[in-house]
Amino acid sequence: MSASTPGTSHPDLEALQALLDARQLLPLLPMIYVAWADGELHERELLELRERMTKMLGLSSEDQEVLASWLDPENPPGPVALRYLLRALHRDGGALATDERLSLAELGMRMALAAPPAEGSPANEELRTSLREIEKALGVVGTEATEQLRPEARDTSATLPARNLDFDPKKLGELLDAPHRATREMVRELLAGDQFEYTDGLPLKDYRELVVTWLKALADSGIGDRCVPDKRADGTRDMSEFLAIFETLGHFDLSLLVKFGVQFGLFGGSIMFMGTEHHHRTYLPRLASLELQGCYAMTEMGRGSNVRDLETTATYDPDSKSFIIHTPTETARKEWIGGAGTYATLATVYAQLIVEGVNHGVHALLVPIRDAKGQPMPGVRIEDQGLKMGLNGVDNGRIWFDQVRVPRENLLNRYGNVSEEGHYESPIPSPNKRFFTMLGTLVAGRLGVSAGGLSAAKSALTIATRYSDQRRQFGPAGAPEIPVLDYRMQQRALLPRIATAYALTFALRELTRRYNSVDPDRRQTEALAAGLKAYASNFALGATQAAREACGGQGYLWLNRIAAIRTDVDVFATFEGANVVMLQQVAKARIGEYAHELNDGNFFTMARVLTRQATRTLSETNPVVTRNTDTEHLDDADFQLDALSYRESDLVSGVARRIKSRIDKGMDSFEAFNDCQDHVIAVANANVERFVLECFIEAEKNTTDAALRRALSQLRKLFALSIIEKDMAWFLENGYVQGNKAAAIRDRVNTLCAELRPDAVAFVDAFQIPDTLLSAPIAFSEGKAPADAQVEHARGIARD
Amino acid sequence: MSASTPGTSHPDLEALQALLDARQLLPLLPMIYVAWADGELHERELLELRERMTKMLGLSSEDQEVLASWLDPENPPGPVALRYLLRALHRDGGALATDERLSLAELGMRMALAAPPAEGSPANEELRTSLREIEKALGVVGTEATEQLRPEARDTSATLPARNLDFDPKKLGELLDAPHRATREMVRELLAGDQFEYTDGLPLKDYRELVVTWLKALADSGIGDRCVPDKRADGTRDMSEFLAIFETLGHFDLSLLVKFGVQFGLFGGSIMFMGTEHHHRTYLPRLASLELQGCYAMTEMGRGSNVRDLETTATYDPDSKSFIIHTPTETARKEWIGGAGTYATLATVYAQLIVEGVNHGVHALLVPIRDAKGQPMPGVRIEDQGLKMGLNGVDNGRIWFDQVRVPRENLLNRYGNVSEEGHYESPIPSPNKRFFTMLGTLVAGRLGVSAGGLSAAKSALTIATRYSDQRRQFGPAGAPEIPVLDYRMQQRALLPRIATAYALTFALRELTRRYNSVDPDRRQTEALAAGLKAYASNFALGATQAAREACGGQGYLWLNRIAAIRTDVDVFATFEGANVVMLQQVAKARIGEYAHELNDGNFFTMARVLTRQATRTLSETNPVVTRNTDTEHLDDADFQLDALSYRESDLVSGVARRIKSRIDKGMDSFEAFNDCQDHVIAVANANVERFVLECFIEAEKNTTDAALRRALSQLRKLFALSIIEKDMAWFLENGYVQGNKAAAIRDRVNTLCAELRPDAVAFVDAFQIPDTLLSAPIAFSEGKAPADAQVEHARGIARD
Repeated sequence: MSASTPGTSHPDLEALQALLDARQLLPLLPMIYVAWADGELHERELLELRERMTKMLGLSSEDQEVLASWLDPENPPGPVALRYLLRALHRDGGALATDERLSLAELGMRMALAAPPAEGSPANEELRTSLREIEKALGVVGTEATEQLRPEARDTSATLPARNLDFDPKKLGELLDAPHRATREMVRELLAGDQFEYTDGLPLKDYRELVVTWLKALADSGIGDRCVPDKRADGTRDMSEFLAIFETLGHFDLSLLVKFGVQFGLFGGSIMFMGTEHHHRTYLPRLASLELQGCYAMTEMGRGSNVRDLETTATYDPDSKSFIIHTPTETARKEWIGGAGTYATLATVYAQLIVEGVNHGVHALLVPIRDAKGQPMPGVRIEDQGLKMGLNGVDNGRIWFDQVRVPRENLLNRYGNVSEEGHYESPIPSPNKRFFTMLGTLVAGRLGVSAGGLSAAKSALTIATRYSDQRRQFGPAGAPEIPVLDYRMQQRALLPRIATAYALTFALRELTRRYNSVDPDRRQTEALAAGLKAYASNFALGATQAAREACGGQGYLWLNRIAAIRTDVDVFATFEGANVVMLQQVAKARIGEYAHELNDGNFFTMARVLTRQATRTLSETNPVVTRNTDTEHLDDADFQLDALSYRESDLVSGVARRIKSRIDKGMDSFEAFNDCQDHVIAVANANVERFVLECFIEAEKNTTDAALRRALSQLRKLFALSIIEKDMAWFLENGYVQGNKAAAIRDRVNTLCAELRPDAVAFVDAFQIPDTLLSAPIAFSEGKAPADAQVEHARGIARD
Repeated sequence: MSASTPGTSHPDLEALQALLDARQLLPLLPMIYVAWADGELHERELLELRERMTKMLGLSSEDQEVLASWLDPENPPGPVALRYLLRALHRDGGALATDERLSLAELGMRMALAAPPAEGSPANEELRTSLREIEKALGVVGTEATEQLRPEARDTSATLPARNLDFDPKKLGELLDAPHRATREMVRELLAGDQFEYTDGLPLKDYRELVVTWLKALADSGIGDRCVPDKRADGTRDMSEFLAIFETLGHFDLSLLVKFGVQFGLFGGSIMFMGTEHHHRTYLPRLASLELQGCYAMTEMGRGSNVRDLETTATYDPDSKSFIIHTPTETARKEWIGGAGTYATLATVYAQLIVEGVNHGVHALLVPIRDAKGQPMPGVRIEDQGLKMGLNGVDNGRIWFDQVRVPRENLLNRYGNVSEEGHYESPIPSPNKRFFTMLGTLVAGRLGVSAGGLSAAKSALTIATRYSDQRRQFGPAGAPEIPVLDYRMQQRALLPRIATAYALTFALRELTRRYNSVDPDRRQTEALAAGLKAYASNFALGATQAAREACGGQGYLWLNRIAAIRTDVDVFATFEGANVVMLQQVAKARIGEYAHELNDGNFFTMARVLTRQATRTLSETNPVVTRNTDTEHLDDADFQLDALSYRESDLVSGVARRIKSRIDKGMDSFEAFNDCQDHVIAVANANVERFVLECFIEAEKNTTDAALRRALSQLRKLFALSIIEKDMAWFLENGYVQGNKAAAIRDRVNTLCAELRPDAVAFVDAFQIPDTLLSAPIAFSEGKAPADAQVEHARGIARD
């Protein structure tokens, strides 16, 4: 060892020189450094260490003195002395200049061997044994302390792990695109056009103007005609294609998505579904081209979820053959009406229809709210709702009507009409059934919210996964920093959610298929649409939030897109039916298989239903199975589906019993329901999750490409087991799994996360979100990243 | 019954007239209506019902014919006929005009009794029995079907429930304010001033300008002098008072809070804690008055959490006696520096200090970044970071240094200095210990984040609770709509969080007391500060999100404040230490009781620690206790604290064993740690939650006013049990509770929510947030609500 003193006259260095000159202490230098570097050895420990060193190495009295001065609790070495000691260790090329990982003892050993033997040194093997004993007393772990001593602690050129699975992301993408790949490709290409460019910090008015420009571009491309075809006599459209368009749009600005949904889904849909030929002919072509912008005026200030009790009235006046639309109280004002704030000229207005003095319940009418110049029509008052948490490109507004007249023909009269003679008539005698038919537009809207939320989540997950794959922070001692996606918690935050995004893609596709086809159980489909809306939007909120946090501060920056997605998507939990209300709806359907009559406080046929349910018995759980921790068993789709089905059945019969017992004791059914509301919501989640897993398993089975099937299989396992893990308290409480199995499932989720990690980027690439739509600089590896754009962006801000 | 036909000639009405004329059918009218109204009876059920009616009442052939025409599955009655039938029922004042709740059978009975007896009618009791049988066949529940028939379904004048508890919110507020009530009152009064008025939709530049105006107003009030007293020779301040100020500011705009925290907490704090007399004298008075605005430049693009490996260098040049500050790579640029975007002229810059060619680790220096005119200093490049998800009143910026020179005196030299002779010197020999001392400013910052997050959560919870107390939606049939806070799910969303806000208030106060005092275990306090930062900020995100959703669309509207609070607070999970990193830190401290040396990949003393921990044994759980479901037991603070302590100990020893076994098998300790990261994070949460509950129990014990103690006791029960419920899978898996007890705890949480519900508003009122700070119109009952402000606001938007 070249134990020369550094070329400096710092006072600390005399002590260092003495140490370096003490030849017997040479093999101890690494340990002496480590003993101080951490600064946490207790006085007692230091003295003990000194004693051992002295005894074991049989130190001379001179060297004992030097050692004592270096391990003196009362008088620690100076910072410079320590720093130079480290430097002296670095200079010893012979010992540390190796890729081997050495213990401190071994490092000391090599330093001793490289230098001429000191007088009185013990023999080599004896020395080695002694050094090991001393190292043990110091309480350090393996070779890591030595790694800390290396001059270059960090190498950042480490390569990424090789992929585990052999699927082609493009092929997986095609599978996700089915059955409307061409349509999706068309929308993606359209959105890649120059005019679809993100913006930020625009004043409300300009942003809204821009969104309308985008909407017009979509209409000009012919998408509008596809969405509201005026030629279908039955007032339907291919919801499957409509949702494919909608889902793809969901990767771009969500204000555009919502405006699109209002114009073509809700406003256009209300005319298609509730209007008749006259309405179709008159309005659909003009709204498809955006010549006519409309809105969907259902919600009132006082009535969000409780649509049945809306207060706005539409009273028929036989003399003038017109309806008088009126807002009787302040709480009756229409609220949150997308498009009403600035642009819409025509509104589908939901109101209590009063004919011949009798209220026939909620119906929809077309009411002009603005003239060609954009001024409110006489009797109509409109207020912009101003700034929101997100979706600020959507012009939400409030509307008041003061005795506004519209002609008889403006009633959307497919399910309820007023005849020429001024009498009310309807093909649906039951007012309850008629009411739910009128709300049919909302069912499609709920599928749309699921699709949009899912796309938003996929965008955010893609950005976060790509960033986490590249971003490095910390690492093992002496090794390169590791990508943050190598951390267990980061994997747990992102990978089960990627799996869920796949699961929901298949579930949504299946539900859309049912909705689109002649469905023998329409009500179950509608209830599931409500349930999926709640589930998918909750997922979207959670996934975008996880993505935000996974990207740290970068996720908070507007430029990186996630913040915009997160704030825009937040209201998905609320609009088109508040999630708790939606979940109650699917639970009621599941409990009673009678979604509609159980809805909205109209519970009175429940006793019959409950009696049926309560008699249902569940098969006992098998103790061999509840303790089975084999990986093969845990991974098995049958086990996973059985777990979710068992939970659902048990929750349903349990809540039915509980509600029934309360009603039997004289509790009002509404109160009984509310007294079990947490249980009811659990039923809903269990129902939706079972359905989603079924769809995933089915999609997996139907995949013929082996590589793709293996990939889907891995995702399905992670999805199913993380659902079970999330609700483990239920499975344990009900004896479906024992403690050992619960632990095994948790471990399996961890292992699956680790197994999927090398393919994480491939899995999000299969979402096929165009780079221009992702846009976030952090979603691209360096070099590819539009760093200039970032600078340009910042300059733009600075100019403001 | 006045069975006259309505005055109209609608064709449906002939059928109705025939029905009304059939006297034997009179008692059946309510059931006939109900049979159709829902529209869900199967064909078979209708025919069965018809048969029963015919048989039981012995109907004449004419009446049988009429009945058959009304219960004909092939030919349902028209909607108008049904509507008028309902009207006919309404007109029968004698039967429905009662407050009694009647079954359909009883209603029919009364209608029959009021009319002259029909020919061939069975005797009264016989009729009643028959009607009951028929009603049963119809499958309706109790009296609710009848309630549906009443003309006025909704009464909105219902009164709110009376309070359960007898505490005075003002007195509870005083308790929460201790020990700095006067200071808090002063800040509240200050913020009630005219200039502190919320704004929205301002361009970035204007918003930031406004926030600086606010900051100046605070400085002018003398608050700055309190926060950075230049007279304390020991470079400390009363953190307890500082945090009281900070916490109170947290009820107003959070951009102001963060700017305040940067200026007085981080920038001011770094000078106080790391500077020496020269720095105190030169800078503190000017920064207290805001004459000097500064920033705290620690974070770099490439190094967020991993501060130890920062790349910026400060190289000492002995010739000019100055330091050269330099950004050697793109990843070394300073990022996210609050205040750097626009206003700061001086920065506390963290850099690797290189003296005499040796790197002495991260130190802090004062570097001027702008001149008096606001232009960047030579060699300094600054970029504004632009729009963020929230906190847009804070001017975050990036900084690059190109060989920027600052004089030797600009080193904050309390813990590391370069002498006149150009030698490095430090009172702390251990580089590790010195590093953590330098980060001390962050510890105070973490207490600040906890306090600010807690205040944000309280604001959002107050708004949501007050709104939920007033907002009505749905209700039992025929009864008023109920406030949404009467719903179980709404209670569960808000009440445990209110309880947690109380719990964290006490925990933060206790931790501040320890931080402020001569603390025998400084490291544990610092680790707890990291843990509480993560826990409180996670809580703040969850609570503000719950508040947003609890208010539905109203929560999404900027005007109602929650959206602003939610988006501002989001980054609290990230800044001042990413939450996962913080939780690892507290877990490592807990595992090893050696927070510092275990931090940042420096794990090598762990084996020693782990050996100690792994030998720890846990007392067995008692089967009598694990099945005990008595309310008294569940409510007991000893049981609750034991549960949390047991969990913590078990998790700690478990993770220690797991990490040790991995290391024993040759795994690198960093990898071993990461391989148990989910377990490690669970340790951290368990540790923090146990601490928080201890503080709550202590606060409860120390409360002498009996009414207040009862109130706190209820909150403490809800807090503790909902924590246990949240992690029930753990308690079940580890045999600490059995299934029956898990169910009992869930029920108890439900019951406590219901019990606390009538006092919910009183509990949030005790947070004492001034109305002007809440500001949200939905937080005020109608009449008190500034409706005009809302309109004004909307008009302002419309003018844009």
